[in-house]
Amino acid sequence: MQVDFWFAMGSTYTYLSAMRLRDKEAASGISFRWRPFHLLDILQDMKHVPFADKPAKLAYMWRDIERRASGYGVPIKVPAPYPAKSSVTANLIAVVGMREGWGRNFVRAAYRNWFLLGEETGSEPNLSHSLSEIGQDAARVLALANSDDTKAALSRETDAARKLGIFGSPTFVVGDQELFWGDDRLEDAIAWCRDHQ
Amino acid sequence: MQVDFWFAMGSTYTYLSAMRLRDKEAASGISFRWRPFHLLDILQDMKHVPFADKPAKLAYMWRDIERRASGYGVPIKVPAPYPAKSSVTANLIAVVGMREGWGRNFVRAAYRNWFLLGEETGSEPNLSHSLSEIGQDAARVLALANSDDTKAALSRETDAARKLGIFGSPTFVVGDQELFWGDDRLEDAIAWCRDHQ
Repeated sequence: MQVDFWFAMGSTYTYLSAMRLRDKEAASGISFRWRPFHLLDILQDMKHVPFADKPAKLAYMWRDIERRASGYGVPIKVPAPYPAKSSVTANLIAVVGMREGWGRNFVRAAYRNWFLLGEETGSEPNLSHSLSEIGQDAARVLALANSDDTKAALSRETDAARKLGIFGSPTFVVGDQELFWGDDRLEDAIAWCRDHQ
Repeated sequence: MQVDFWFAMGSTYTYLSAMRLRDKEAASGISFRWRPFHLLDILQDMKHVPFADKPAKLAYMWRDIERRASGYGVPIKVPAPYPAKSSVTANLIAVVGMREGWGRNFVRAAYRNWFLLGEETGSEPNLSHSLSEIGQDAARVLALANSDDTKAALSRETDAARKLGIFGSPTFVVGDQELFWGDDRLEDAIAWCRDHQ
């Protein structure tokens, strides 16, 4: 049983899923395929800014995330720097990491440094700190992340997300057509996977 | 124990809450105060169109509502006509109905006619059918709904919602400051009310 976990590193709610997935995977027996994509490209196509220009929605978002993190036992300090100006770099590194096998550790480290230490994701010092923590050489990884090959791979995944009808992060996809948008739909995605696969 | 249920009649997800609240109220012992407001005014301030100009998000919304209605045992036929051009009229009638004591029955009837029969909420024949079903005279109610007094009352409630930081429907408010946005946060609002009131 497998669920695709589509995510973008600039997404705030994705913190909750990134921190919860390991336990959920162990408890459910479902394997999650982590698929980074560049959500901003899709949002720009839609001319949609989810929070940054909407003060009431932004204030609610931080309170909601804080409240739910507390319920999950996930530590958090809000608000964190937002929006993250260079989230594309974090997405590119995630692509390299998923290929090389350390991607999940990078995602968790980058989110912890963003949401606990206030280091904006995708920028320094978050990048160096997160890569160093997981034993990766920042210079080597950044060169790979910024290669044409990696950029093309991220672009292909973003196109695949767009074709699936994805417009937010996280989105869980069961069986390549059933979408569950939002960390708060993770349990629904797991239940759907159990009932339909 | 009391929770404010802020809602706008043009909201699709509010269907789920309107159909679920009576059972939730009975099971929880919490009373819900139904407070119609005109969300469109707030969305226009924010320059925010939640779904109507976003095809992928709109398609997801219908599938999500259909899936969740099924899980709740709430009947539904999707898609229903959307957006509802005259939802303000339904909101004004709801204000009159809450004052006179038949508001909840009207809300449920209008949603059933919208989501089961495909009659757009706020327009004919939805208005006449919904009022007739609950034993109200449509001509009398519409005259009251369109009075300056009712328009001022809806406007005051919309201002109160804006001051609370509300930007969507349904929003559940516990203790006049803790907001829970979305039908999928109803259980969280009930838990919060129990733990903090």
